[in-house]
Amino acid sequence: MQSRRVFLASAVAAPAVMRGARSYSWSDVDKIIARGDVKGKLTKEDLPTPALVVDLDGLESNIRKMSSYLKSKQRAFRPHGKTHKTPEIARRCVDAGAVGACAAKISEAEVFARHGIGGLLVTTAVIGKYKIERAIKLAQFKPDTMFVVDNAQNANDLNEAARSAKIKLNLAIDLRVGGRTGIAPGDPSVGLAEQLTRLSNVKFAGLQAYAGHASHAVGFENRKKVSFDAMSPAIETKRMLEKKGIQVPLLTGGSTGTYNIDSEFAGIDEHQPGSFLFMDIDYNRIGAAGGAAAYQDFANSLTVLTTVVSKPEDSMAVVDGGLKAFSTDKPFMPVMKGDESVKFAWGGDEHGRLSGVLSLKVGDRREFIIPHCDPTVNLYDRMFACRGDNVEAVWQIAARGMSQ
Amino acid sequence: MQSRRVFLASAVAAPAVMRGARSYSWSDVDKIIARGDVKGKLTKEDLPTPALVVDLDGLESNIRKMSSYLKSKQRAFRPHGKTHKTPEIARRCVDAGAVGACAAKISEAEVFARHGIGGLLVTTAVIGKYKIERAIKLAQFKPDTMFVVDNAQNANDLNEAARSAKIKLNLAIDLRVGGRTGIAPGDPSVGLAEQLTRLSNVKFAGLQAYAGHASHAVGFENRKKVSFDAMSPAIETKRMLEKKGIQVPLLTGGSTGTYNIDSEFAGIDEHQPGSFLFMDIDYNRIGAAGGAAAYQDFANSLTVLTTVVSKPEDSMAVVDGGLKAFSTDKPFMPVMKGDESVKFAWGGDEHGRLSGVLSLKVGDRREFIIPHCDPTVNLYDRMFACRGDNVEAVWQIAARGMSQ
Repeated sequence: MQSRRVFLASAVAAPAVMRGARSYSWSDVDKIIARGDVKGKLTKEDLPTPALVVDLDGLESNIRKMSSYLKSKQRAFRPHGKTHKTPEIARRCVDAGAVGACAAKISEAEVFARHGIGGLLVTTAVIGKYKIERAIKLAQFKPDTMFVVDNAQNANDLNEAARSAKIKLNLAIDLRVGGRTGIAPGDPSVGLAEQLTRLSNVKFAGLQAYAGHASHAVGFENRKKVSFDAMSPAIETKRMLEKKGIQVPLLTGGSTGTYNIDSEFAGIDEHQPGSFLFMDIDYNRIGAAGGAAAYQDFANSLTVLTTVVSKPEDSMAVVDGGLKAFSTDKPFMPVMKGDESVKFAWGGDEHGRLSGVLSLKVGDRREFIIPHCDPTVNLYDRMFACRGDNVEAVWQIAARGMSQ
Repeated sequence: MQSRRVFLASAVAAPAVMRGARSYSWSDVDKIIARGDVKGKLTKEDLPTPALVVDLDGLESNIRKMSSYLKSKQRAFRPHGKTHKTPEIARRCVDAGAVGACAAKISEAEVFARHGIGGLLVTTAVIGKYKIERAIKLAQFKPDTMFVVDNAQNANDLNEAARSAKIKLNLAIDLRVGGRTGIAPGDPSVGLAEQLTRLSNVKFAGLQAYAGHASHAVGFENRKKVSFDAMSPAIETKRMLEKKGIQVPLLTGGSTGTYNIDSEFAGIDEHQPGSFLFMDIDYNRIGAAGGAAAYQDFANSLTVLTTVVSKPEDSMAVVDGGLKAFSTDKPFMPVMKGDESVKFAWGGDEHGRLSGVLSLKVGDRREFIIPHCDPTVNLYDRMFACRGDNVEAVWQIAARGMSQ
């Protein structure tokens, strides 16, 4: 029996065969993709490569699992949109019980808001006159939007802008529990919270404590300890505020790596995981509860589909995905789906080099699990949502590039 | 005297001051950027960060220098569009004497063609039924477009498609002189060239020999040797073909790192450099003719402009550019323009951590020279063309993401 792949590969040389029941021209495929009307029409074989592909069975199971787990622990679920940047995925999370979506930057939040997503939390401080104006506009459009501050002057600036606009801004305090942004837990953040409660046009929304280093700590018991050490000062800060009679509506933190750790810590109200949707090689190696080396609580649903474009040696093949098709910030290489013995190496901006792949031919297509999901998604304008080999939908990664 | 930066930082808190002669709202700036009508209106202080900035003095001098150098050596100049992906830059190169532009993939070439750029050379083989259809369409639209092949079956497929379309395709042979794609120089490529000359709807366009490893070989004398070793078999292949009476209209290769090396080798007709336009830290360290460690033949014209969004410690600042704002494939960190003593470290997807920066405040803006230009450009939808601090133009990176 002739496979569809063989059929396509030979189609150009044998145009008579192309008159079959299911044979498109590129212009047909291009139009179908542009309309998004792909279901029942396209398979992965039709996609222009490199293509970002999400496996719907995996994605749906990941959303179900995280959502029901956090529900069982009475924790709110506000998945981080910086991972997917895709309104359709934010919507699916809300349908599964999420209270909204996190956005890393104001421009990302604006995109989600325009696409009808509410319950937004912008997880980086909004700095500078113009971005403050954008925050005010966003809050006018979606009044439940929350912003974070870690700095007294910025809090005053936001309050002043809110006062001019005659609105109240929801401001949470970004606590420094990791290596990046934030104000120190304890007295400094209590002081900032007191300031927020005094500002005329600010509603104190709570505390954000995101410990990036804890999410990726390798080994479950080690991760538990690292996360406990990181989150305890945040929980203590919440207690200090409550003792002073300052209500803390929210302590938000919790990531993919700590979903079953932080949810055991009393005082954390909400989790903002992102990578659980797709998973990646980096997360696969952090170790699972019970001691397993591979972290497989969630399925690897995201891949990059490539085509072999050159076969310069018997033991080497070149695919059409390189530094512009995969993130490169982790010390791992993409892993071929279905054959982990194949070795991938970067072949520059546009190519990947495979070795140990004697059976591959020019024109063959292969999928690769990615080293790091967030920056990889940010390279693509759309992802193809597939069930098995069938393409069911084309999702616009509408917030791609929105790092401002 | 109050600097403009201080003015902007205090503007929100003091709205009365904003009524000055030159004070925009974000909505004004957004419209000006969208119209592209920025000259005389915007400065770098107005740009939403992270922003990709190209210094026009540097870019123009780089184009002038490369163009006049290659002209003086009687070599054609077909700069590689995969670096800039920006029709306006391709146009400026053509205005300076370039014969056209290279494009890494068919989708990138389509964008250049739609923007009026001719003389296109697609430097990766066009594989698969749909991409072959696209190649035919592109050749119908821009008949001087050249494609490359390294495989007999692919050559036959392209010929068949060209025959159906009743056109002649310009096909060059991609020689394997580096670690990626291509057919071995010498007998195998001579055989493929003979095949091309026999195909009814193919015009044999010549040879492509791109040695990526030579471009980045460190040390001028070492690079000379590496490039000589890489390019000699290509030059020899050209001679073998001519001996057989097969005209070789073109031997194209030559990169930024070897512009003053390959242009000394008799037989190479054309250079396809890209990085010289922008330069990057990776290229800065390859060493210059004469033995200098720093390669400064071309100016570092490309930077990423960021804003300090958090100052968690006296000796640390966090800027709003991270793994989504810079390429990360090289083992170098971004370097602050104007103060190389400041250390940059990745702070995740959205942030960079600066240390040793006691004088920086939240809201301050700083530019960074990038580790690797091509994949960084591919992260942005537009670049801001600046002269000093003034923004003179907004250029659409129209082929961003076009890796297909």
